Amino acid sequence: MVWRRKDLLGLRGLSHQEIGKLLDTAVPMKEIIQRDIKKVPTLRGKSMVCLFYEASTRTRTSFELAGKYMSADTVNIAASSSSVVKGESLIDTGRTIDAMGADIIVMRHSASGAAQLLAGEVKARVINAGDGAHEHPTQGLLDMFTIREKKGKLAGLTVTILGDILHSRVARSNIWGLTTMGARVRVCGPSTLLPPEIAALGVEATTDIEAALRGADVVNVLRLQLERQQKGLFPTIREYGRLFGLNRDRLRLCKQDVLVLHPGPMNRGVEIADDVADGDQASIEEQVTNGVAVRMAALYLMMGGNNDGVGN
Amino acid sequence: MVWRRKDLLGLRGLSHQEIGKLLDTAVPMKEIIQRDIKKVPTLRGKSMVCLFYEASTRTRTSFELAGKYMSADTVNIAASSSSVVKGESLIDTGRTIDAMGADIIVMRHSASGAAQLLAGEVKARVINAGDGAHEHPTQGLLDMFTIREKKGKLAGLTVTILGDILHSRVARSNIWGLTTMGARVRVCGPSTLLPPEIAALGVEATTDIEAALRGADVVNVLRLQLERQQKGLFPTIREYGRLFGLNRDRLRLCKQDVLVLHPGPMNRGVEIADDVADGDQASIEEQVTNGVAVRMAALYLMMGGNNDGVGN
Amino acid sequence: MVWRRKDLLGLRGLSHQEIGKLLDTAVPMKEIIQRDIKKVPTLRGKSMVCLFYEASTRTRTSFELAGKYMSADTVNIAASSSSVVKGESLIDTGRTIDAMGADIIVMRHSASGAAQLLAGEVKARVINAGDGAHEHPTQGLLDMFTIREKKGKLAGLTVTILGDILHSRVARSNIWGLTTMGARVRVCGPSTLLPPEIAALGVEATTDIEAALRGADVVNVLRLQLERQQKGLFPTIREYGRLFGLNRDRLRLCKQDVLVLHPGPMNRGVEIADDVADGDQASIEEQVTNGVAVRMAALYLMMGGNNDGVGN
Repeated sequence: MVWRRKDLLGLRGLSHQEIGKLLDTAVPMKEIIQRDIKKVPTLRGKSMVCLFYEASTRTRTSFELAGKYMSADTVNIAASSSSVVKGESLIDTGRTIDAMGADIIVMRHSASGAAQLLAGEVKARVINAGDGAHEHPTQGLLDMFTIREKKGKLAGLTVTILGDILHSRVARSNIWGLTTMGARVRVCGPSTLLPPEIAALGVEATTDIEAALRGADVVNVLRLQLERQQKGLFPTIREYGRLFGLNRDRLRLCKQDVLVLHPGPMNRGVEIADDVADGDQASIEEQVTNGVAVRMAALYLMMGGNNDGVGN
Repeated sequence: MVWRRKDLLGLRGLSHQEIGKLLDTAVPMKEIIQRDIKKVPTLRGKSMVCLFYEASTRTRTSFELAGKYMSADTVNIAASSSSVVKGESLIDTGRTIDAMGADIIVMRHSASGAAQLLAGEVKARVINAGDGAHEHPTQGLLDMFTIREKKGKLAGLTVTILGDILHSRVARSNIWGLTTMGARVRVCGPSTLLPPEIAALGVEATTDIEAALRGADVVNVLRLQLERQQKGLFPTIREYGRLFGLNRDRLRLCKQDVLVLHPGPMNRGVEIADDVADGDQASIEEQVTNGVAVRMAALYLMMGGNNDGVGN
Repeated sequence: MVWRRKDLLGLRGLSHQEIGKLLDTAVPMKEIIQRDIKKVPTLRGKSMVCLFYEASTRTRTSFELAGKYMSADTVNIAASSSSVVKGESLIDTGRTIDAMGADIIVMRHSASGAAQLLAGEVKARVINAGDGAHEHPTQGLLDMFTIREKKGKLAGLTVTILGDILHSRVARSNIWGLTTMGARVRVCGPSTLLPPEIAALGVEATTDIEAALRGADVVNVLRLQLERQQKGLFPTIREYGRLFGLNRDRLRLCKQDVLVLHPGPMNRGVEIADDVADGDQASIEEQVTNGVAVRMAALYLMMGGNNDGVGN
């Protein structure tokens, strides 16, 4: 199978085969990361611009290293130090980067749909690195990669996503990807943080954390955006932790070999207890490594590669 | 002809032959940008430091990509996160960068003459990427490159520069470069934004936009620095647009095949109307590509290259 | 001798042989910096993350260039634009960078001991680029390299460190390194800026600048952190300059061939007079070049190199 899409804007609408191809391609990519010499010439002479309108360490660094491990040229543009300050439109900024010869634009933006808007206006390939509460497809892919690596499959698993579903692009990308790959998805959080239309996405929604965790193969704990609390969407951070934090006792409701994921950065003691975050069932650091691998896979496939050439 | 100047501080004082050499060298550079593999070893083992005391996306990114396409090592220093905050003098900062082995310093600064001050104190080659209202030579070169590419020549053309001439380094570099190359230059803007000494530069100055546009081969529309309005230098942004904005009607005063340029980022609907910015006569995105090309040419020539080796 | 430590956290506790090895390895590294083509493949396929919780131009740029000259991939993380803002712990941030495959983390932090805390939690090699008032080992090394280069030796020399000893990591790294290498160290500053425990470090401490300078082979002038004055730790900046600034008259108290060092950026006219800073006895720019060289040496040795391979 050859990758045929220009952009990677979300997991919604990707086929089972496309997601499978991305995950399969990430396997040899992960081996490259673990080599002594982490450098393949795959993207030599290709340029990647990380255009970040929201601050991010982990996603930007992950993409930047993914590009460098494949010998791409990488350039960072942080919105705060950019023409954006001068009031330039997103489209004009994108066209400018395009005209400089960028092959790939990795974009993060606070507005849902921003990546799609850009993608329609530029020749460069666009990867959505998070757009508002919409999608964060490479995060969805790394979660699925980690699950598949630990469980050997995705189909038939029960995956519980726990936390602020309403505002979470991570939740949405997980939902689209996991249901396409045949997993059952449950979402759970305070009623103020569950989107009303959630049932239409083919997932079970509940405010009952015990019901949500019972028998789960995987729990994906979302980061609590602490600033939501000021808006009154949940009582207090302490209260949230008591009601919805994942602790050892609650973990016992899941399957014995449950896998715990978190996209990071963690609010330890809020949405996740220390002993769960550092426990044997969590693979949170592994997710980070896998994040570089799936990003390498996405960059590679989008620039026209296929599995045969990986690792040379 | 071999390039013999240590630095590129402005277009004032460059000979017809020197400007011609820069423009000629940018031709094969542009071909490199449009290749599938944008990478030549020309500046391998050379290091370029972008020292920016004013925020900039487009110029910094353009220089950074120009360096990377030629395999230079590039490092960015943004003044806000630098020793400058600690009160170090410009000269001490420059000497420090010099002592680290930088071959080229690309500098932007809010003070006219800053690049020249630095250039006199360091062994590294200095490229002025904009100093106050003084010069921005690579912008002037990319404008000229674009005109020459579209019109086949520079000599004998009438080029109208429209907008805030007083505060514009882009205008000054255009004036010096274009008049040296034999073009006729007209400048036009509100009387508060025309420098009193402008006639001495060998250009026609007018506040009458119709007279300025009549028969023009090229219109170079300057960005309106919106903060000037607060200083009372023109009535309101809306008023400015009505009096001096380039719209379709006004464009008809120019020659039929007029070329429209803008250094970006554009204030659409202020100094330039949407249908002009996106129309067939504008080459604004092409300018961006040409900007990378002329910067590659400047870097290349300054590091001792000549045309023969380009493109290998 | 093969380098066996995982991390470079400070000069305290390093043996005479270890410091000697670092300094010896920096000699061929300095030659690389002075070559026409500053590029060796030594760290190709290795990745270095500069994790800076405090702003810095000179140290970050120096490490970044050191890495690039040896073909390492380098990535910068500035705390202000990072997950740190989101409240992530230092250890979680470090583990994340580790999991992305970073081979080396270069860290600056305002808290003493931060680098050590990180080093214990990550597989990556950690270089302390300054932690609070604790240590800045590569600064100590570059000072010693410069002294050894100018004086031919370290043992037996009298080195006076002048200024705010209390808050200075530069002073501490100098003290540990120099005393290990057999130099005599004197420290001098206002009594409010001399740490009470200083005598225990095997150095002479005095508030009498004339006594401190008399017969010195080397004077290392520390940068005055101007914000200390607000805390009342010394009367006024002008007063400080008058009482403790190094000027020409005072310099005559030292040996005739005294060497003057300053870690930069300098407050000219405060802790050091212009004519001393720019005089023949100062090697302040040379220190900067030597800083890149000792950082290359540290990176090289920590990644498993030994002298034999340098310069290929």
